[in-house]
Amino acid sequence: MAHTGSTEPVRIGIVGLGTVGSGVVRLLVDSADHITRHAGRPIEVAAAVVRDPAKDRDCTLPAIPISTDIATISQDPSITIAALLVGGLEPARSMMVELLENGKDVVTANKALLAEHGPELFELARRLGRSIAFEAAVAGGIPIVAAIGECLAANRIESIRGILNGTSNFILTRMEEDGSSYAEALALAQAKGFAEADPSMDVDGTDATQKLAILSHLAFGVWVPWKEIPRTGIDTVDIDLIHYAAELGYRIRLVAVARRSNGRLAMRVAPALVKIGTPLAETRGAYNAVSIVGDAVGRMFFHGLGAGQMPTASAVVADIIDTVVGRTAITFRTTGLLSADTPAAKLAGGDASERHFLRIVVTDRPGVLARITGILGDHGISIASVIQHDPIATGDAPATSIPPDVALVIMTHSCPSSAVHEALLSIDRCDAVRGKSVCLGVLDE
Amino acid sequence: MAHTGSTEPVRIGIVGLGTVGSGVVRLLVDSADHITRHAGRPIEVAAAVVRDPAKDRDCTLPAIPISTDIATISQDPSITIAALLVGGLEPARSMMVELLENGKDVVTANKALLAEHGPELFELARRLGRSIAFEAAVAGGIPIVAAIGECLAANRIESIRGILNGTSNFILTRMEEDGSSYAEALALAQAKGFAEADPSMDVDGTDATQKLAILSHLAFGVWVPWKEIPRTGIDTVDIDLIHYAAELGYRIRLVAVARRSNGRLAMRVAPALVKIGTPLAETRGAYNAVSIVGDAVGRMFFHGLGAGQMPTASAVVADIIDTVVGRTAITFRTTGLLSADTPAAKLAGGDASERHFLRIVVTDRPGVLARITGILGDHGISIASVIQHDPIATGDAPATSIPPDVALVIMTHSCPSSAVHEALLSIDRCDAVRGKSVCLGVLDE
Repeated sequence: MAHTGSTEPVRIGIVGLGTVGSGVVRLLVDSADHITRHAGRPIEVAAAVVRDPAKDRDCTLPAIPISTDIATISQDPSITIAALLVGGLEPARSMMVELLENGKDVVTANKALLAEHGPELFELARRLGRSIAFEAAVAGGIPIVAAIGECLAANRIESIRGILNGTSNFILTRMEEDGSSYAEALALAQAKGFAEADPSMDVDGTDATQKLAILSHLAFGVWVPWKEIPRTGIDTVDIDLIHYAAELGYRIRLVAVARRSNGRLAMRVAPALVKIGTPLAETRGAYNAVSIVGDAVGRMFFHGLGAGQMPTASAVVADIIDTVVGRTAITFRTTGLLSADTPAAKLAGGDASERHFLRIVVTDRPGVLARITGILGDHGISIASVIQHDPIATGDAPATSIPPDVALVIMTHSCPSSAVHEALLSIDRCDAVRGKSVCLGVLDE
Repeated sequence: MAHTGSTEPVRIGIVGLGTVGSGVVRLLVDSADHITRHAGRPIEVAAAVVRDPAKDRDCTLPAIPISTDIATISQDPSITIAALLVGGLEPARSMMVELLENGKDVVTANKALLAEHGPELFELARRLGRSIAFEAAVAGGIPIVAAIGECLAANRIESIRGILNGTSNFILTRMEEDGSSYAEALALAQAKGFAEADPSMDVDGTDATQKLAILSHLAFGVWVPWKEIPRTGIDTVDIDLIHYAAELGYRIRLVAVARRSNGRLAMRVAPALVKIGTPLAETRGAYNAVSIVGDAVGRMFFHGLGAGQMPTASAVVADIIDTVVGRTAITFRTTGLLSADTPAAKLAGGDASERHFLRIVVTDRPGVLARITGILGDHGISIASVIQHDPIATGDAPATSIPPDVALVIMTHSCPSSAVHEALLSIDRCDAVRGKSVCLGVLDE
């Protein structure tokens, strides 16, 4: 290690030469002098493993031995660190196990792998005296893993709020700024390379939820299987909702939240209204943002590119440097991340109170508003404001005597989510109500 | 150290029990469980050294031996880490030397000491195999030292911009939001404890400049004596300037800037116009903010409380934990901070281009505007907009035939600062110009 005085190059293996993998190789080559200064010794890419060696690759990359066999890295004793930069669960999981069992420290950007198999992989690494670094797995270039795990170590974290999925945020920003439909904005995100051909893990909230599970472990010292976190994606957001929110002074963002609530953790990933002018509302395009409240430090806010080749590569290489100099090993051992005795998170139910934004589409006839506000009142829900909009255009249908549909947009005062959901069950059963009503949480600061 | 398996308490000494020192003791006591988990072993306050033991102290603090003699810490072999939490240069410098020479690792929040004596103290620590940690010295609770030194280690940093002095920012925000005069806002800052009885180091930009010198060393690997950095304080800002800026869509902030410019570093601390809606403009009250551009990571933004008891204590305790577990020693040795071979920064002159905001007070008579814009044109300065305001009220003086004074507010297109300053020298020599004109840089993103 550098601080022992060795200046021999460290040899690393790269598993996966996709967008992030080639970014890491490029950064290690282009910024070699700079990186050597921080690592105390040169870092040399010794070998790469890919699925399809015939695939076209960035021809500006240096010539490195490329193989399809993980053994070319795992069995090479001169390689001490492997960067595992493939997505998905398999073969990523088996590769990580093989690398650890053969004495490699691992750096990864694979949040799905950690959210799904983190506990077993971390236990294995600890048992073998190895480390796993994963700054790049959450919020790309934002050093949020180090911030929570090290810099805020003296704090009891009260809450985390984040915009953790750049694809969703890009789509919502385009809808809001261009008036595009969800489908148009998604197509643009795909054309620009911000969304995968199959964007479902991004837009259904899976990706953000897996990241929230990892951050919550760091912040609260508990483990929560990501599938237990309530999750709603942005595929439920239409352009009308964005317009109504704007009218009230809000934008819609896919927000991941974890906060202490009566000895439990209230967690969710869902579209929410965020007040214009607050930092989350000003987070646009492919940017990510994280706001953390610690008991000593107060509110901290971090903003940066959450995805993309070089921001993610920057985080991977910082982890490689930390592993070379020995900081990763220390953090991994002292904080006991994801150890066998990590307690399971106790999730709070829907009884946490906040303001809610409701959109209820109704047939425009006398008494409907009274009926709906009556049901809300019966559930103890107090209304802050109501907007009833003009009848919804029904294409070029001729005027008839059938009453048109109108949208009721209601902002409540703070009340338990459970009460709102029960009220909406009754409301959605009313004859006059069309389709399923929408309910979003409201974040005023 | 924790990672060697010891679970014995680490004994630390606290030098200075002022606001920050008592915050550190309180945090170590109140959050002991949490801190022990991160440090791998308990951290125990063994002794404190103060200037005046008779002074009233926070009676909720635990009983610890208090002395006026630094030897009670430096000569106690059971104490391995000292937190040096006194301000100013002496006796802080001598105490730091004594602590290092007696084998203590030191954690400090004293930015003046590092900006003034950093190179000699860091060399001494390195020679003795000791470390100095200083996260709390810059931007309080924002973990900017770790972010630049470790998390962004793979990046070539292009620029840093920061709001680094909470007192100045509090004063500017109060003037802007309440319409207070500078003197009223300063008095309020003092009443609220945000400003010292002698606030000169804050409002004249010294504090922010010392912090910028430290951050620039971390980011650019060079050393610049803080006195060489061009510096203007907020004592030059009056309420009229704030109103004119607002009219143009800007706020005024004390901004510390360091950026690469043709192989040199352009650095300054000065009030600047920042566009409303950008993160620096939205940084209010005692908050600090830092925006960094790295070649790989792009633009990162950090926002948090930059001063105050517990945010600063949070950073000090994080450093204590890092020192206990051994991360500080690694960082200190591998990055060669402030070593003898650190090159001196080459500062750029005033030839860097940007937009400028000018306020020129003139006697309102024919031909003056033509004269002034003519001088600007002669210096190659192109004007983006001009506002000429109504005559300045001169108290309750009776109307006379003497032409009144008016303020010309001019926004230039991008041009070299040196050209603007030369033009202003000519302008200020004109008969019609009253007093010294004001020139502020403009930050549009």
